[in-house]
Amino acid sequence: MSKGITSREESYANWYTDIIKKAGLADHSAVRGCMVIKPYGFGIWENMRDQLDRMFKETGHVNAYFPLFIPKSFLSKEAEHVEGFAKECAVVTHHRLMNDPNGNGVVVDPSAKLEEELIVRPTSETIIWNTYKDWINSYRDLPLLINQWANVVRWEMRTRLFLRTTEFLWQEGHTAHATKQEAVEEAEQMLHIYAKFAEEYMAMPVIKGRKTPNERFAGAEDTYTIEALMQDGKALQSGTSHFLGQNFAKAFDVKFLNQNQKEEYVWATSWGVSTRLMGGLIMTHSDDAGLIVPPKLATTHAVIVPIPKPGPEIDEAAEKIMKALKDKGIFVKYDTDKKKRPGFKFAEYELQGIPVRIGIGKRDLEKGQVELARRDTGEKTQVPLDAAAGVVEQLLDEIQNNLFQKALDYRAAHTSSADDFDTFKEILEDKGGFISAHWDGTTETEKKIKELTKATIRCIPLDNEQEEGKCILTGQPSKERVLFAKAY
Amino acid sequence: MSKGITSREESYANWYTDIIKKAGLADHSAVRGCMVIKPYGFGIWENMRDQLDRMFKETGHVNAYFPLFIPKSFLSKEAEHVEGFAKECAVVTHHRLMNDPNGNGVVVDPSAKLEEELIVRPTSETIIWNTYKDWINSYRDLPLLINQWANVVRWEMRTRLFLRTTEFLWQEGHTAHATKQEAVEEAEQMLHIYAKFAEEYMAMPVIKGRKTPNERFAGAEDTYTIEALMQDGKALQSGTSHFLGQNFAKAFDVKFLNQNQKEEYVWATSWGVSTRLMGGLIMTHSDDAGLIVPPKLATTHAVIVPIPKPGPEIDEAAEKIMKALKDKGIFVKYDTDKKKRPGFKFAEYELQGIPVRIGIGKRDLEKGQVELARRDTGEKTQVPLDAAAGVVEQLLDEIQNNLFQKALDYRAAHTSSADDFDTFKEILEDKGGFISAHWDGTTETEKKIKELTKATIRCIPLDNEQEEGKCILTGQPSKERVLFAKAY
Repeated sequence: MSKGITSREESYANWYTDIIKKAGLADHSAVRGCMVIKPYGFGIWENMRDQLDRMFKETGHVNAYFPLFIPKSFLSKEAEHVEGFAKECAVVTHHRLMNDPNGNGVVVDPSAKLEEELIVRPTSETIIWNTYKDWINSYRDLPLLINQWANVVRWEMRTRLFLRTTEFLWQEGHTAHATKQEAVEEAEQMLHIYAKFAEEYMAMPVIKGRKTPNERFAGAEDTYTIEALMQDGKALQSGTSHFLGQNFAKAFDVKFLNQNQKEEYVWATSWGVSTRLMGGLIMTHSDDAGLIVPPKLATTHAVIVPIPKPGPEIDEAAEKIMKALKDKGIFVKYDTDKKKRPGFKFAEYELQGIPVRIGIGKRDLEKGQVELARRDTGEKTQVPLDAAAGVVEQLLDEIQNNLFQKALDYRAAHTSSADDFDTFKEILEDKGGFISAHWDGTTETEKKIKELTKATIRCIPLDNEQEEGKCILTGQPSKERVLFAKAY
Repeated sequence: MSKGITSREESYANWYTDIIKKAGLADHSAVRGCMVIKPYGFGIWENMRDQLDRMFKETGHVNAYFPLFIPKSFLSKEAEHVEGFAKECAVVTHHRLMNDPNGNGVVVDPSAKLEEELIVRPTSETIIWNTYKDWINSYRDLPLLINQWANVVRWEMRTRLFLRTTEFLWQEGHTAHATKQEAVEEAEQMLHIYAKFAEEYMAMPVIKGRKTPNERFAGAEDTYTIEALMQDGKALQSGTSHFLGQNFAKAFDVKFLNQNQKEEYVWATSWGVSTRLMGGLIMTHSDDAGLIVPPKLATTHAVIVPIPKPGPEIDEAAEKIMKALKDKGIFVKYDTDKKKRPGFKFAEYELQGIPVRIGIGKRDLEKGQVELARRDTGEKTQVPLDAAAGVVEQLLDEIQNNLFQKALDYRAAHTSSADDFDTFKEILEDKGGFISAHWDGTTETEKKIKELTKATIRCIPLDNEQEEGKCILTGQPSKERVLFAKAY
């Protein structure tokens, strides 16, 4: 509490915001619902972005850039899409300001009204498929495997740092294919890439599954999702990949000549993850003492704190360790600030979630030792100076694995089965988490359950076991269980 | 001409657009003045961005992200700034669309009018300094050395791919300092970084200098610039770095407690380069056969073309060369397409500006040789198969140097002195380029010269030789020459 972080028990929501603000990840801005991503938060995002980008490129994708603005008429072309996205958005209506003739600063120049309003992109399917029309003529032009890193705007009423902001950063992949099968395989491939990234880099276990028709992306024929579980028992939709069928090709008249010289509509996918992942990262691992960053995404892996302050022997030992760590590609910082006491520094790096702290004290040094402290468990060990870099390297692996295992254990302990509605409600109230239950397959029942409990169907897991059962609400027959949870 | 590229002699403007479109760098979009950056163009931009980003980070800068939107009132706070930027901009006035009650698709919902209009950022000084106010209290919080990679929007009336588009991508550095001297040094440091990048990576020689008061950034006390010369004799302002004094600190009331516990306003700089650099890259090196990309920014350094088509021996030789090149960090592509003839491929890679082409033919192979062709000079050489990778590596260095030297020679041949206005006009009409001439130091004369000749003062070179002379227009005394040119 001395750091000013609300405990999770007291208020999970305040804890979350405190971590973000105190660790210097992000801040609210003067613009409603928009955030400022501060250098430390942006550094972690850069690591996430760069790793995802490598994974996209390894699977044959290339980056491009499409306009920020979408003509209003484009949004109307795909009927479901406009319902899903055109409503809450930023609308540009004018292209000029002028000095107020009455001297009240600058005002909108009424003579600079746009003929057609422009929407700040909430997602780019429409402008991209309007462009693909010019790029695709024959099967030889396919597939197009294009990704874009961009900012998007959705006019959210209730916002929350990283999880839901009016403007956010994301990547959106938009691919075009000659066959349905190829498009479905692409959508599935990207889901697996997202899951691999979440688990191997973010140390955040995810369930891979399909959304119900009711929860699909507006304009998709099938939406795949990865769902993670946060420490408060609520699910976080962390990435989605959509098989769009020929919907956008039809809306924008994108046809190609197939190998038999016959015209066909092009098949499409789109897939995206956003700065929302930062929210998932924070909520999966952090504790009441501050942020915890998995080593694979940390901007600084280890920090050296001289005890009580720098000096010739300590500096020499620090230099030795730093050199050895840098040779291993491990980012290390030596904190030589003489104005702050070691205890203050310890608390600061704990708050920032630096994976390993290396304390170098005079007395330890006399014994040829330094002290290593793990951020995840708080465990401390004395190791010989010469072995320190090697042990840090091992520790980083251990921390990465431990964080994942811990999150996996948490999820296992918070995944339940319910065979009747009372049990279902009881579990939701008691411990939350995922609940595997039968559902009759109708949107009506899905909505009713949400209305009664706030729980939604997070997904129908991939390769779901087929099992006869009865819907927990209506008692109607069901062929498989689906995963429910309250969600962000 | 068979590639459909207009020659430079016929029309430099059409040649430029043809290169961009035929080489697949960018395209016009459905949104007025906005472009689509295609994968090939974006790949080159990524290489530029990544190298600049490394240079920024090496000099202690970190990245962050600030909101896309700027409240209208912020723009009015710095008087000159609003004059320069608030006029032609995209104004968001509403946050919702609705179904037209008359059934004409979607229309703006009049009930969703914003209380205060939001401007899509044309540059971010105002929103950033409004944020810095919260981040800066004491000298210990300084300096802030923050950069942002972002999209910005300026409502340009006449647009041109890469050179001037309504939306463009750029980086904007915004730094805060405790002293004037430190801020001036920062602004100068960034100018030198831009110049180094332009010359060493883009192979584009630049003149470093200061802008005249008339050409300064709106809100700056001093604007530094790098100016390059294009093949049509026109200058391209390629990057600017501004010493902002305390203007924005005063406008947003950003003060700090100095070491003597006295309150002072913070000193500022800002600096930026944009996708406009792509235009400079294209116009500095390319020829009538297509694009020429300097090796240090090429996405593919060499391409292997089998002659006439792939086969076991040729494949084996290609694999050998590819392995050797990859070991050297050189990006190589083996074009195994059997449907296209070698001549067609040659023309295609020439158009795309791939620095080196490696032709592998059966007859050459029997002699243990392959053919290397340079994109910059067209020169071909036979080299032993085993030596090919090594020679390619050398060639890439040579090409990089040759492109720079060629551009430098062009600039030398197109930099003149003029001591009277007739000579000045004559040179401008005959060969264009930079003209070094005396000017009386007044904005009035500067504007008059522009009116009469379309030439502007590009800069007052750094470390400019001091020399007594007379203004070419007014005959008034002058202490130094300045550089004039027609410019983009």
